[in-house]
Amino acid sequence: MREDMDLERVRELGQQLRVDAVRAADAAGSGHPTSSMSAADLMAVLLARHLRYDFDAPSNPCNDQFIFSKGHASPLLYAMFAAADAVPDEELLRFRRLGGRLEGHPTPRLPWVRLATGSLGQGLPYGVGAALAAKRLDHVPSRVWVLCGDSEMAEGSVWEAAEHASHEKLDNLTAVIDVNRLGQRGPTRHEWDTGAYARRLRAFGWHTVEIDGHDVAAIDAAYVEAARTTGRPTAVIARTLKGKGVSAVEDREGLHGKPLPDAEDAIVELGGRRHIRVEPRHPECVRSARPLDHAPVELPRFDVGDEVATRDAYGQALSALGTARGDVVALDGEVSDSTRSEFFAKAHPERFFECYIAEQQMVAAAVGMQTRGWVPFASTFAAFLTRAYDFVRMAAVSRANINLVGSHAGVAIGQDGPSQMGLEDLAAFRAVHRSTVLYPCDANQTARLVAAMADAAGIRYLRTTRGATPVIYPPDEEFPIGGSKVLRSSADDRVAIVAAGVTVHEALAAADRLAADGIAARVIDLYSVKPVDAVTLRAAAERTGRLITVEDHWPEGGIGDAVAAAFADGGPVPRLVRLAVRTMPASAAPAEQLRVAGIDADAIVAAARDLVA
Amino acid sequence: MREDMDLERVRELGQQLRVDAVRAADAAGSGHPTSSMSAADLMAVLLARHLRYDFDAPSNPCNDQFIFSKGHASPLLYAMFAAADAVPDEELLRFRRLGGRLEGHPTPRLPWVRLATGSLGQGLPYGVGAALAAKRLDHVPSRVWVLCGDSEMAEGSVWEAAEHASHEKLDNLTAVIDVNRLGQRGPTRHEWDTGAYARRLRAFGWHTVEIDGHDVAAIDAAYVEAARTTGRPTAVIARTLKGKGVSAVEDREGLHGKPLPDAEDAIVELGGRRHIRVEPRHPECVRSARPLDHAPVELPRFDVGDEVATRDAYGQALSALGTARGDVVALDGEVSDSTRSEFFAKAHPERFFECYIAEQQMVAAAVGMQTRGWVPFASTFAAFLTRAYDFVRMAAVSRANINLVGSHAGVAIGQDGPSQMGLEDLAAFRAVHRSTVLYPCDANQTARLVAAMADAAGIRYLRTTRGATPVIYPPDEEFPIGGSKVLRSSADDRVAIVAAGVTVHEALAAADRLAADGIAARVIDLYSVKPVDAVTLRAAAERTGRLITVEDHWPEGGIGDAVAAAFADGGPVPRLVRLAVRTMPASAAPAEQLRVAGIDADAIVAAARDLVA
Repeated sequence: MREDMDLERVRELGQQLRVDAVRAADAAGSGHPTSSMSAADLMAVLLARHLRYDFDAPSNPCNDQFIFSKGHASPLLYAMFAAADAVPDEELLRFRRLGGRLEGHPTPRLPWVRLATGSLGQGLPYGVGAALAAKRLDHVPSRVWVLCGDSEMAEGSVWEAAEHASHEKLDNLTAVIDVNRLGQRGPTRHEWDTGAYARRLRAFGWHTVEIDGHDVAAIDAAYVEAARTTGRPTAVIARTLKGKGVSAVEDREGLHGKPLPDAEDAIVELGGRRHIRVEPRHPECVRSARPLDHAPVELPRFDVGDEVATRDAYGQALSALGTARGDVVALDGEVSDSTRSEFFAKAHPERFFECYIAEQQMVAAAVGMQTRGWVPFASTFAAFLTRAYDFVRMAAVSRANINLVGSHAGVAIGQDGPSQMGLEDLAAFRAVHRSTVLYPCDANQTARLVAAMADAAGIRYLRTTRGATPVIYPPDEEFPIGGSKVLRSSADDRVAIVAAGVTVHEALAAADRLAADGIAARVIDLYSVKPVDAVTLRAAAERTGRLITVEDHWPEGGIGDAVAAAFADGGPVPRLVRLAVRTMPASAAPAEQLRVAGIDADAIVAAARDLVA
Repeated sequence: MREDMDLERVRELGQQLRVDAVRAADAAGSGHPTSSMSAADLMAVLLARHLRYDFDAPSNPCNDQFIFSKGHASPLLYAMFAAADAVPDEELLRFRRLGGRLEGHPTPRLPWVRLATGSLGQGLPYGVGAALAAKRLDHVPSRVWVLCGDSEMAEGSVWEAAEHASHEKLDNLTAVIDVNRLGQRGPTRHEWDTGAYARRLRAFGWHTVEIDGHDVAAIDAAYVEAARTTGRPTAVIARTLKGKGVSAVEDREGLHGKPLPDAEDAIVELGGRRHIRVEPRHPECVRSARPLDHAPVELPRFDVGDEVATRDAYGQALSALGTARGDVVALDGEVSDSTRSEFFAKAHPERFFECYIAEQQMVAAAVGMQTRGWVPFASTFAAFLTRAYDFVRMAAVSRANINLVGSHAGVAIGQDGPSQMGLEDLAAFRAVHRSTVLYPCDANQTARLVAAMADAAGIRYLRTTRGATPVIYPPDEEFPIGGSKVLRSSADDRVAIVAAGVTVHEALAAADRLAADGIAARVIDLYSVKPVDAVTLRAAAERTGRLITVEDHWPEGGIGDAVAAAFADGGPVPRLVRLAVRTMPASAAPAEQLRVAGIDADAIVAAARDLVA
């Protein structure tokens, strides 16, 4: 039977973590030892006496989760891993080196880091997602511990998380706030006023404990209190000293993010190296990842010629996917009646998460849930996903597997005007590492892509349309990611029109009119914007020498750029013309919008005639 | 002497606003009358008895500012404009029509709307910027009134604003929160618990007043209390009924964003049309826009051959600009020692605004300030500007003129790792309507571009580099926006290398090595990524037939896409190869990063040899 480490030894462990953080940063010549030293006692107590974690089985969903929101304090995290014998001392001294796992800010290059941090204010929202999954999906007694800095409490995303956590009664979530008074360039707004944080968090429905963050007994009691508190999350708000333990740096400004001036002296002042090893408590259960009870997916089937909005097809397909797969969950930003995730919510209420109007928390919750093996689909208007762009960016650094769905794409929404139009979403999502960007034009295509994206890796984005569009594909047509569909084609093609989503239908109408004029035009449905089907585009270029892209998006970063990039291989490039939204839209009917933007059939016909002339 | 309208008549005015909102939405066949009806009494009292505003002089900085954060309630706003005789009744009935000014969500197509809304949670952060400018820059008794919905209180940006407003003691700011209990798809998190909002806001340092939002006397008293409260902002938290006054829709779910089922009946129930006209109080002073005391700018001058970080040049140039121009202000997200805006902060502390780690509020404050004629420069790490992407998107809808500066671009930052690297910023900012995107490679170029961007229109983005780079341009060289510099050129050029920022120096080294091998390579410094210098690129293409782009950015949306887009005019296109960051970086030294990413001189030489072979 494992006994908890006594508090005197825990105090020594805190000093060891400081020493090792100082050594790591000194070896690297950069890093954040002072931000590590303030939280060392907080983390020593957690690791030695409270965390339930099996370093040999990091994917056991019964493990506690442990999120370093103040990611710049990575030397402290790595010192903890060293104390747990997970990282050898020689690796600690290769901190921040090329080819190493110990990056400047933690990433999943280490198996015990499931969530990359370093963009402040993200750890607590991720923790909410993880705690929700533990409680409502996995039903395990796993606790989620998040180490927050005091500076990052200024981020709005922290308060989205605070609200969500108390609303969901996440008593398995503990925030440990390291109030060391100093931000990067000077004092924080509230300095050592721990009461300022406590008042705010209590008003948001949290239980709070204010302590001296260097008193190991007080820390221990606070964690016990957190674990005993039911019905609400707990924040342990700890007054600390940045650079604690070394007089040359303790509570001094101007030393953020710098190795200690004299590491040797500092180590002596800290009492020298120690070799304490910790085996954390093991989790209370062992569980494999959720059973993969995948039945065949019975996707909705739509009749060719009917008019169906792709957002409707999305909602129905997602619901069907949820029926076939127990690992699919859905989240929405209080617009499920618009995105149509309501179909899923009604069929699978236990796996639907209402995130209210808090898109950062919504995406973060999805990222947190996928660390436990769940397959999240998070939806809101495409325009409002821009609110969470930093979270999407960081999700890629976390190697997260999430599905994001943006409805109400482009000017085609009509009267609501530009604030509601997703016109930069393709650009934003294309520029995410290893992302997949899909933009269907009909209901059957949408349904197939929803099923396909669930099995893809990385950040998968699907763009849907508000209004109804004609069903042009039969229900059994297949749409591999990275493919495209050639909808009109002949040996006489003189121009190729590349479209996706609403503009596919305009392109087809344009091709018909051009054909009547004796101009054969190829039409390509580029439903996979990334990865893009370079083979089909190259073939069209070789046949026609002329490509027109047409998209309901700003000219930058979308389909025009994606098509041009397909030819950036040093080979010959066809003549290119792009039709896109070039003026700020206002309110108008959908068809008027396409006309005013110059992306309707008329505009395509005119551009094609010019290009072949 | 103007007398305030009596409360009985104000009550009638509230009914008139409801009737007109119902009529506008009915004529349009869409819109949000029920969300307008809940706030009608709140706005009637404001317009008739508290707002100080001259509709004939909307740019007088002494005017109160009036921000409709719940932008979907635009029919109410337009009904107010009609009551003030600013919008004729026939225009009200052209709501949401093509070519009209009364868009689905308010935009500056109307002269009395300075800030577009419709993405929720933005009005209060804008209001903070406007109130800060009124108080600390304009020194006028102008008040800022923000109408918020209850749903949008879930957005973290609202709490960034709450924190900032109380920290800055903005007693000239009043938030009016319309707690109508119903969001888009159902009840809000707190429904009618006005105390939940009050507790949170009080904990954040606000004065709060909870009232019945349909009791005009209580509303009036609350606004008087708000105006009398000193040292802190006030929130008037009003319990209301969505659809108030019409039994068919009052407090009913499922009616969000829909015209009333029977407008005629509703108007009868509301007591019929009224023709009350309101002249709001005039402001207490009349002021022209700030004096344009522009002295010639004495930019810093750097010696060719020295090594200077462009972020240092930015800070020094901004400070010099602030000395020459009294209208320039700076904001930073608690990283002024990194972005180097600290140069400005030290020289012009009265025009520097510390926004702490709250990038949404920082950008919103800049947007709010420019409504009063100030020229803001807001800076943080390029990576963290992604946090505010929705605010940047909406700033473009607002036709805002702001400067945003992102430091620590690309893998070139070195050891800190991917969380701190701006690798999608060019894509994000290129895809903003009417944006300017600049990326200097040396200190003198940076200084010139800082001065140039201050005079440009729209969203101007400057990308700076962490490490020092050689000064290659003399201090008097000019760099027009939309231009480029040809750094190596001959009649024998067989390939052109297009670079910007750090990769310019790699391109020059590569060209030297290629020249030694007998391959003449043109080098183009594409410092203006948007607008892009298509003429110079076309000339290089005509001479060489082969272009290589090389950028410290993901392959999507940046320089490669910008160069390809320059050839999307239907003309012949050169062969293109792009070098960009294609794998997820980790920690490493800056030079190692460029090598691993394949964007250093070696990679350029190899690509050029391949392409000319």
